[in-house]
Formats: sequence, structure tokens, C-alpha cells
Amino acid sequence: MTSAAPAATRTWDLLSAHKYQLAETINLRKLLSETDRFSSMSHTIEGILFDFSKHLATAETLPLLLNLAKDANVEKVRDQMFAGEKVNSTEQRAVLHTALRRPRGSSLMVEGEDVMVYIHDVLDRMIAFSQAVIDGTLTGYTGKPITDVVNIGIGGSDLGPRFVTEALQNYNTRLRVHFISNVDGAVMTRMLASCDPETTLFIVASKTFTTAETMLNARVARDWLLQKTGDAGAIKRHFAALSTNTKAVAEFGIGTDMTFPFRDWVGGRYSLWSAIGLSIMLAIGPDHFEKLLAGAYAMDRHFQTAPLEKNVPVLMAVLGIWYRNFWDYPAHFLLPYDDRLQHISKYVQQMDMESNGKGVCKDGSTVTHNTAPLIFGEPGTDSQHSFMQMVHQGTTPIPIDLIACARPHHNLSENHRSLLTNFLAQSRALAIGQTLEEAKGDPFRVFTGNRPSTSILMPEMSPFHLGILLAAYEHKVFVQGVIWNVNSFDQPGVELGKAIATEIGAQFEAGTVNKSLDTSTAGLLAFINA
Amino acid sequence: MTSAAPAATRTWDLLSAHKYQLAETINLRKLLSETDRFSSMSHTIEGILFDFSKHLATAETLPLLLNLAKDANVEKVRDQMFAGEKVNSTEQRAVLHTALRRPRGSSLMVEGEDVMVYIHDVLDRMIAFSQAVIDGTLTGYTGKPITDVVNIGIGGSDLGPRFVTEALQNYNTRLRVHFISNVDGAVMTRMLASCDPETTLFIVASKTFTTAETMLNARVARDWLLQKTGDAGAIKRHFAALSTNTKAVAEFGIGTDMTFPFRDWVGGRYSLWSAIGLSIMLAIGPDHFEKLLAGAYAMDRHFQTAPLEKNVPVLMAVLGIWYRNFWDYPAHFLLPYDDRLQHISKYVQQMDMESNGKGVCKDGSTVTHNTAPLIFGEPGTDSQHSFMQMVHQGTTPIPIDLIACARPHHNLSENHRSLLTNFLAQSRALAIGQTLEEAKGDPFRVFTGNRPSTSILMPEMSPFHLGILLAAYEHKVFVQGVIWNVNSFDQPGVELGKAIATEIGAQFEAGTVNKSLDTSTAGLLAFINA
Repeated sequence: MTSAAPAATRTWDLLSAHKYQLAETINLRKLLSETDRFSSMSHTIEGILFDFSKHLATAETLPLLLNLAKDANVEKVRDQMFAGEKVNSTEQRAVLHTALRRPRGSSLMVEGEDVMVYIHDVLDRMIAFSQAVIDGTLTGYTGKPITDVVNIGIGGSDLGPRFVTEALQNYNTRLRVHFISNVDGAVMTRMLASCDPETTLFIVASKTFTTAETMLNARVARDWLLQKTGDAGAIKRHFAALSTNTKAVAEFGIGTDMTFPFRDWVGGRYSLWSAIGLSIMLAIGPDHFEKLLAGAYAMDRHFQTAPLEKNVPVLMAVLGIWYRNFWDYPAHFLLPYDDRLQHISKYVQQMDMESNGKGVCKDGSTVTHNTAPLIFGEPGTDSQHSFMQMVHQGTTPIPIDLIACARPHHNLSENHRSLLTNFLAQSRALAIGQTLEEAKGDPFRVFTGNRPSTSILMPEMSPFHLGILLAAYEHKVFVQGVIWNVNSFDQPGVELGKAIATEIGAQFEAGTVNKSLDTSTAGLLAFINA
Repeated sequence: MTSAAPAATRTWDLLSAHKYQLAETINLRKLLSETDRFSSMSHTIEGILFDFSKHLATAETLPLLLNLAKDANVEKVRDQMFAGEKVNSTEQRAVLHTALRRPRGSSLMVEGEDVMVYIHDVLDRMIAFSQAVIDGTLTGYTGKPITDVVNIGIGGSDLGPRFVTEALQNYNTRLRVHFISNVDGAVMTRMLASCDPETTLFIVASKTFTTAETMLNARVARDWLLQKTGDAGAIKRHFAALSTNTKAVAEFGIGTDMTFPFRDWVGGRYSLWSAIGLSIMLAIGPDHFEKLLAGAYAMDRHFQTAPLEKNVPVLMAVLGIWYRNFWDYPAHFLLPYDDRLQHISKYVQQMDMESNGKGVCKDGSTVTHNTAPLIFGEPGTDSQHSFMQMVHQGTTPIPIDLIACARPHHNLSENHRSLLTNFLAQSRALAIGQTLEEAKGDPFRVFTGNRPSTSILMPEMSPFHLGILLAAYEHKVFVQGVIWNVNSFDQPGVELGKAIATEIGAQFEAGTVNKSLDTSTAGLLAFINA
């Protein structure tokens, strides 16, 4: 049993004292002149370099921080998660997205069932289906090959597949894959205007198959297809479903051959490795999808076996806690120096803020420490011409992850050199700053320095390396959740909004404003109805 | 002269005391049951409703907050800005983006010149040019009409035009307008692969015409055009420039008839109203562009004439300071319940964080109070299935602006009703919360409530209403800058990164690692070169 109050431990006190000492004395510029700092504080995992040497840390810091992980029994809870124990405590569920990445031939017994048999059955069906769509043997209702795939999902059924498909754009099959999430009718209207009913495949992705936005958009697509084709049989050829609720899928009119299931031990924000990844597989082909899984598995093995002091997701996690809880830095930015990763912050945002944006410990007591930071980001170099002014000279320091690929997939070498030069320059500028003397006495050109960052260098953008990167963020979030003693695998905070939407929706439809509504909401509704 | 230290004033002390009192006692649910709260705390400006009634404010709060604006002489500095005085103190420049919105027939004398003559000369040239491109009389070098426009710019020369063009997509002319900003060669490679050299117009947008990323991408486009056409004369037909540096434009090979200038009193992040807006004008047509200007002008007049207690940008500004400086809430989210506004946060992010993300007061002294918050956002309803968990139940409350349009531009009425229902439900859920009793004793389903928001309702997405909205955010940022006593119109924080990039770039090109580099940067560079 982990402590309900990490902030009440001796480790926490020692870290608080250490922070106060460092805040007075640390000089990143000086530390970065020590020759062995880079070699001792960077780690290469399966070809990806993670450089932690630009952090506010001396030789004392990381051992102290790692005590947080030891106090919280991170390794034990990690092993429980991988073994299929019910670490999602509020919902009494296992958390087994890591099983989805395990290689063929392995087995994992959970409550008397070898879940690997189930997992690889579904995976094999996804592969056969994708191959048939890609090579044109599985066609639309008039016999034409499918040209466009529209994934209708929201949250975890959208952000992961959307981001990975964009990141791996250089591995594209001939299919064009689109993503629809927002219930705003402008999105579906625009999408359908460019779709050909004979060659478009709709994939309805919803864990419960009851997600309001997704089901409304799916019905709009179904109505459109019926109206365009005049053929109810077309639905079975043009709709696939990704869901745990196979009964609701059948009621919608989707055939079992077009239904790809997963289990309740796959959380939405960890689901791109499951059947939810079907749109990725169609976009990049089954072989590349399997390499994505293999990359995540390689990071799983690292996370399971590396000692804490060399364990990359653990280091990412405790450094995050260092800033969030001891330096009082509220946010964490992701700055990809790679256009293909421009939406990584949206993906990690959900993974992190929905998992650990909690105010209650596992035992139901109110937390006495800050939990998930604000995760955000935009691509470099764009961000340098936008909000980076604030990151360099604003009053709230923000730790950042900079991510780049050593080798590009294009031939514009001067562009790539410029991109990587800026990638290197930003972290250096943030770390070393510029003194008043260097600024020739101009106070407006002073940079405090000591602004921390992690640099992550991939050799190139490949499915394997992307799998490694995403699994590293997943495990970082997991470790932080264990240390903060919150359940990272539920999301009760979305329910109240849903309940109130149902209450307001009824009044909206009836055209009446109920007196139970607050004066603001009633006033806004009256403005809309005017 | 404003006080160098707003935190040292009596107003600040009174607000601090008021905050401590409210933190113990405020109950938004109760306040929102008072019938006149909505009518007294919401304002309709030119058809847009701004509802401030869901804020942590009693009848005492706003008068106290408005004293911040009075102490800082906001009205006086505002009038100085509109009159063309040099309120950009570090660069000794006027700040006159508001002049770009003034109607025909008005005059504004600045240092002996009526700048309105210059402004309307350029505007008239933009209109004639746009009309000729749109109606096909101005063609490419083989006589074919232009079909595609590619705006090459970054920061202020990209974010504003890109966002407005997307927001006003329902007003599109026949032209397809694209935006290139990142120096990542993947972007330009993908763009050029889909461009037809006979029908593509490139617009190079750079205030100084020396912006490294923009000029590199512009050279790539020029090389591509030369290679495709084998005709140096094609450049003069297919390249236009938006810049204050007409000499550098000519050297690049762009003709004066294709050059649209502006003055140094237009800051990059306030430049979409100037020649930088040419891509907007091509996308939506001159008439709609003039309506955009008229909307911004309407907000300018409101800002100039409304008393502080009814002045919407002033209220937005002081409420922002209330949370940033007194409640210690570090961030501010923008949640548009409108897909067309999905990138508004990127635009406001630059406007706000680059303007006020400063650590030094106007007099050169270090600030003793927090300045710009972290500005971020994603569209509702998507965000509800992502990071809103943290906004509802996380440990760091975040004030949000929700923005929606009462009437859509499509026929999917059920979708629109669902969208607006969620828009209303989120702010209500954040404000009223859910008690332990209402949660039937389940601590995981408790919501503290008292989480503040502003609701902004536009009648519909029109150029005029969008102009009002954007000018409101501009003036909010201006007022905050005046109260925080920082210069909102420079950006010295981007210079150190540029200087270091130049230093590293030389070593990168030479393939050598200089010993002056820190160990981390040298290690990263070696990894790239390996």
C-alpha cells in the first residue's frame, strides 16, 4: 500500500530543502561546462537519445527524486499493471494496453484466460481486413475500391490514431484517412461534401458505442449514405466499428465481419494499440503498424527491466514532479522540431491531464499536493515567433521537451539544418541565459537562464521509433500517478458536464427555460433562442 | 507616468485582502441564483454577448479591480496609443494597428503626415489586386487564372491570416489559400508536390524581409518555380511581397506592382489588418475584408468610449489579472465551441504571451508580479473528452473563455443543438460543481465548483463579428500590459535564441563542434552528425 500523502514523507521534506538550496545556488551554465555531465545524464534507448543534462539537477538531485519512486513502490505497481492486476482501483479493472504490444508467441494469463490469444485473433482480423481494403479486394457496394477512410471518434478514439497517422505520413498506403471528432456540424458537412459514397469507408470508433458526439456523427454519415445510395445494404459494406459493445454495434447495422472488438482493460487514451488503431493500420499498412507495436514493446521492456536511475520514463516522471511540486512550475510544454509531430501535444495532453488531473487520492482523501501539470505545445520553429518570448523572459518558468529527428524524409537539407540548429539553440538559450553584462547593460535583453528542458533526438521518424516515444510518455504518466497516489485510469471529471448537458438539452429542444437553471445559463439560452 | 510597481499600491493590498475573504466564502452556485446577476454582469456589444456572471466576483470585486486600471491611467495610455504617440517605449515607435481599421474619410495626423492617406492607398491597391486575381484578369505566366495562393510567413505574418481565413471559410472566394510557416522542409516539400507552377501565387510575408525561416522557404519556392518554368520572368508574375522593407523585396526579384507595404508602427502580432491581411482578402474577397476591419473598428470605438465598468476589453483584462495575480491561477484557456475557431488559441497565444510575457517593467526594473498567463485551448466538444478532466477536478483551477455562435452555417440542426448544449453545460458544471451529498458520498465524483469562465456568444460567424472579437482580445492584452507596466509591443526574448542559432549553425555547416559549446549541446550535435 502506497502512502496516501506523499507530501508527508521524509523524502518530500528532503527534496523541499534541496530545492530551496538549489534555487539560491544553481547555475546551469556552469554545470553544463562539466565535461561528463552530458554522458552521465543522457540515455540512448533503441536508438533514441534522451538528454536530461539541461535540468535543474546536481549529482544529489536524482537520487533524492528516485526515492519518491521507491517510497511509492513504483516497480511493484508497475509489475502489477503488466501482470493484469486491477490497478484501475475505482473501476476495478486491469490496465493492459501493454499486452497489446507483446510479441506473437507470448502468453499472459488473466483470470484463467490467455489474453494474448484474444489479442492476436483481433490483430490478425485487422490485418486481413486492412490488406483487403488496401489491395482493393474488399470494395464498396458498387464494386469500386475504397479510396477514403473516415474515422468517426472522439477523445481516445480520435487523438491517438489521428496523431500517429499524421506523424507517419511518409509511410502512407494509397488510402486517404480522415478524422472526424467534433459534434460541430460544420465538420461533418465539410467532410461529406468531399466524400464519394461508392468509395468511402466509415469507421465508427467508440469504446462504449454510446459516446454522444460519435454516435450523432455516425448517424449523420449513415443517413447520408442511405440517401446517396438508396440502398440499405450499402451500410454493411461501408461501415466498420471499433468497440467493446458488440451488441450496440449490431443494432446500428454494422456486420460482425466489420466489427473489431477490444476489452474494458484498454483505456480510451491508451487504445491506439488496440482495434482503435485500425485507421492507423489502413493509413500505413499492417507491417508498419506491427513495427509501431514493436517499438512500444521495446520501451515496455526497458521500463520493466532498467534500474530506476537509468529508466527513462521514471526519470521523465520524477523530473516532472520536481518542477510541478517543488519548483511550483505549473506547466510542461512539448516543442517538436518536426512538422509531422505538430499535434503530439494534443495527444500527450489527454494522456497526461485526463490521467492525472485528479484532486482525490486512491483512498478517496483530498490530495495535499499538485497533480497533473498543464500540458501544451506547438511546433518549433513556429513557437519561437509566438509564445517563446514568454518562455524565455516571462515570470513563470516552463520545463519543455524538445523533440527532433536527426534525418529527414525530404531533400531540403538547408531547411533541415536550420530546423535542427534552432532545436539546439532554444534549449541552450533557455539554460545559459544572458547576463546584464553580456547584454551591455540593457535590462530588456537579460535572460535569467536556468530554464530546464529535455532534448529527445530520434534517428528518423519511423513506426518503431514513434512507438518507443509514445510508450515512454505513457509510462511517465503512470509513474507520476503512482507517486501522486491517484488513479490514472478513470475520468470521473467528465461526467457532471454530461449530466448537465442532458438536463439542458431537454429544455433546449422544448424551447423552454426551466427555473432550475442558474441566471447565467438561462440568460445565455435565451440569447440563443432569441 | 504609471507606477513601476503595481503590487506596491493600496489597490493591490485591498484586492489581496478581498481575495482572502472571498476564497473562504464565495459560492458561485448561490451567486448565480440571484436573478439580476446575469443582466448586471453581461454586456452585448454590436450583437455579441459577453457574459461575466460566472466569475469569482461579488458586487465589491469589479470596482476594486477597476481601480487597477485607474491607478495605471489606462484611459490616458489608450488615448496615446490611438493618437499615434510612441507607446512602444523600448523601440520608440507608435502603435497604430487601430488606424488600419478607421473608416474612409477619417484622418489621423502623425508627425505631420495624415497616415490615413497612406493606409487607404495601400488598402485600395490590395483591393484592386485581389479583385484581379479573384476574377482571373491577373493571371500566371502562361495566361491561366490563379487557383492557389501560398502565404509564406511565420509568427505574426502567419497566425492571424491563417486563423481568420479558416474562421471565415464560409465566405470563401474560388481561391484556395494555403499557409507555410515552419522551416521544416517536410512542409514545403508536401506543399510544392501539390502546386501547379502555372496557377500558384506565392505571397512572401515578412515585416523585415529578413526572417530566416520565411526567406529560406521563399527561396525554395523561387528555385522550384524557376526549375519548373525555366523562365526567370515567371517570378514577377507568381510572387507578391508584404513587407516594410521594400528594398530587400526588390532584391529578391519581386516587382513594385506586387509589393504591398506597411509601416513600422504595425507590430507583427497586430498586423492582419495591414497588408499582411492580403491572403485573407484573397480568401474571402475585399468586401468581406472591409467588414472585418469595420468590426474591429466598432470594438475600437467601444473601447475608446465606454466607461470602465461597461468596457468589455477592460473587464476581460482586470478579471484576467484577478486570477493571475491574486488567485495565483497561472493559465487561461480558450474553448471555442465552433470548429472554425479551433485555432483561435494559437492566435491569441502569440498576441498575449509575446506581448506580456515579460520580466522587466517599462523603466527597466524587474517585475515584482506575475505577467502574461499561459494561453491555450482546444475546441469543445473535443476537449471535454481530453484535458477537461483536469479543468474540472485537477489541483490548478483555470479560467476559461467559451466561445460559440448562436446560428450555424450548415443544416445539421441536431449537431448544432448538441454543440451549444455542451457549451452551456461546461460553464455551468465548472461554476456550480457537485457536492459530496449530491455525489451520494462518492469522493471521486465531487466537483468543487467555483471554477470561473466567460461565455462569449456571437450571433453567427461573420467577418464583422470576428473583427469585434479579435479587437476585444487585442485591447484586453493592451490593458493588462499597461497595468503590469510592461511594454507589450516589443519581443526581446526571441533574440538570444536567434544569436545562438547563428553560432551553432556555423559549426553545424562546418561539421565541427566548437569547444565553446556546452557539453549537452555538443553531445546532441555529435549525435546528429554521427
